[in-house]
Amino acid sequence: MTFTTEQMRFWSPEVRELEPYTPGEQPKIQNLLKLNTNENPYPPSPKVVEAVQAVLAHQADALRLYPDPDATQLKQAIATQQNVSVEQVFVGNGSDEVLAHIFKAFFIQDQPILYPDITYSFYPVYSQFFGVKTQQIPLNDDFEIVLDDYRQANGGIIITNPNAPTSIALSLQQIEQILQANPDRVVVIDEAYIDFGAETAVGLVNQYDNLVVCQTTSKSRSLAGLRVGFAIAQAHLIAALEAVKNSFNSYPMDRFAIAAAVASFEDQAYFEAQCQKVIQSRDKLVEELKEIGFKVLPSKANFIFVTHPARDAAELAIQLREQGVLVRYFNKPRIDQYLRITIGTDQQNQRLVETLKTLL
Amino acid sequence: MTFTTEQMRFWSPEVRELEPYTPGEQPKIQNLLKLNTNENPYPPSPKVVEAVQAVLAHQADALRLYPDPDATQLKQAIATQQNVSVEQVFVGNGSDEVLAHIFKAFFIQDQPILYPDITYSFYPVYSQFFGVKTQQIPLNDDFEIVLDDYRQANGGIIITNPNAPTSIALSLQQIEQILQANPDRVVVIDEAYIDFGAETAVGLVNQYDNLVVCQTTSKSRSLAGLRVGFAIAQAHLIAALEAVKNSFNSYPMDRFAIAAAVASFEDQAYFEAQCQKVIQSRDKLVEELKEIGFKVLPSKANFIFVTHPARDAAELAIQLREQGVLVRYFNKPRIDQYLRITIGTDQQNQRLVETLKTLL
Repeated sequence: MTFTTEQMRFWSPEVRELEPYTPGEQPKIQNLLKLNTNENPYPPSPKVVEAVQAVLAHQADALRLYPDPDATQLKQAIATQQNVSVEQVFVGNGSDEVLAHIFKAFFIQDQPILYPDITYSFYPVYSQFFGVKTQQIPLNDDFEIVLDDYRQANGGIIITNPNAPTSIALSLQQIEQILQANPDRVVVIDEAYIDFGAETAVGLVNQYDNLVVCQTTSKSRSLAGLRVGFAIAQAHLIAALEAVKNSFNSYPMDRFAIAAAVASFEDQAYFEAQCQKVIQSRDKLVEELKEIGFKVLPSKANFIFVTHPARDAAELAIQLREQGVLVRYFNKPRIDQYLRITIGTDQQNQRLVETLKTLL
Repeated sequence: MTFTTEQMRFWSPEVRELEPYTPGEQPKIQNLLKLNTNENPYPPSPKVVEAVQAVLAHQADALRLYPDPDATQLKQAIATQQNVSVEQVFVGNGSDEVLAHIFKAFFIQDQPILYPDITYSFYPVYSQFFGVKTQQIPLNDDFEIVLDDYRQANGGIIITNPNAPTSIALSLQQIEQILQANPDRVVVIDEAYIDFGAETAVGLVNQYDNLVVCQTTSKSRSLAGLRVGFAIAQAHLIAALEAVKNSFNSYPMDRFAIAAAVASFEDQAYFEAQCQKVIQSRDKLVEELKEIGFKVLPSKANFIFVTHPARDAAELAIQLREQGVLVRYFNKPRIDQYLRITIGTDQQNQRLVETLKTLL
């Protein structure tokens, strides 16, 4: 839909300039193999379903009441699982909301924040939304982060680890170098994909008063449909996030989301087993794709970033879609010959490989 | 918790100045009569519980998948119930989030927005958050909105109707006068309490291209625990809200919230019956409070705003709390001798009246 200047006169002038984020396609097509939005191929813990059933059985009447604005029960479950104290936990309506609050809380500074030129494409959107100055730092030719580039004056730093869509992870030692080089700025490590083989920086939180770690239940906990994200940091940083949250929406977490997420954090065994299955399937898929000529970046995520020397990526994405296989293609400089493919079950990955074989 | 200047150096400078909203108390005390946050005394429609059970029974696996970012099914249910088209509906994570997006989308203008000096206390918070200029317009001595005061140059207008915490409603004719006097500015009618006897402005949306109506499922639909709010306006205004939403959080509505709210909107009979019960209980309670000496403002809401000529309101609120009855007291100029009391069931209201009789 387009609107006339006459109609747009009602909009806040700065809102006329916004370039919103475009989420991955959520098509309603039967029998589609959906490998485009990095969802987990396995369902959440059965304990999640039980927890929601228990809300319905014992607290349906309580739906008429506001939830706990602080979601203390959920913060406590996360604190226990992450081995931090409850005042070091912030929760939000998906990690996208948590990230939005992070940009407002820390990044509106005189100097620009730094982030890689190839990373989560919501960062420039938040920046525009909140008037945050930015400077994109190019990855090197192997799509790696160059640590020395993060030693210049800045208003803050945000790094996705493992990075998306490249799938490449930094080591904890590398993250510490960034933290140490920027003692007066907040360094955010966005760990949306951390549970598939990379090392979390949560253990560094007590040591670094400038570190914020952001995670989500959408990928490794199979709860994308629920919208629960969280951040871990020292209490003085969490307090800034709470001030922002309480100036925007007092009650972002609903009663079902709180109960379901608590149950997920309490079922550590299921969580670890599912992550291991995804990691094993990934490593197997990588080998098979290499066998049919793909170059695959070294992945620590639940997706891989691949290119084929003989085939145009955009064209291949279209052909895959025609065969009912959806992968993510970014029409952007440097990565326009790559496809981002979410790891499915072994069976789903097999369908992907067989389909690719017919197309190559 | 307080923090040192040293620690607050990490915060965005503007965030150090924020004065967040303080929601009504959500205590975890047994046998408390909770008349402080305008929740509905009745549970939501049984169809809501059935809808969530159906998600668990048939779509538990789908929790691993992102929800529809546009929540089209929910927009359709609201459009049908409100008799508007689907592109005239915006949904959000509670009407607090919808209001936040409204402030960003329309109110960042050169001139100040206008709203009453006594109204929803989140408006100044949003304004500070987004850098919106404001001018508070005093209600008259009877706590009524004076229409002529809204004829001056402004950057937009927001009116709660019925107003909170006063409970007094404007007529549709009065709202039309405000709309007509401000053809180049967005006029927002925040109808959080509309279903308890006042007239909704939704029917004016097709006629006025500057009108935004905001409602919530938290009060009249007994779904405060769920976090679903919505706005109705012409498509060119909804588009601004979508641009803002998609620059902040692509997927604010989770799968349970969508299913539950849809079920609520489809059960119109239950909804109307519960609203009537609250209205009848309100009218009965008003008479009883007048009999024991209270002055009660004329209410079209699910709460009343009362004062007693012989008793200090703050003191009375404390004494009520000691007796296990929670009401809302605002320590603010002009209204510091008033109490805001949510309408309970007849039985709950009786407990309130009996308790008050022992205290007067």
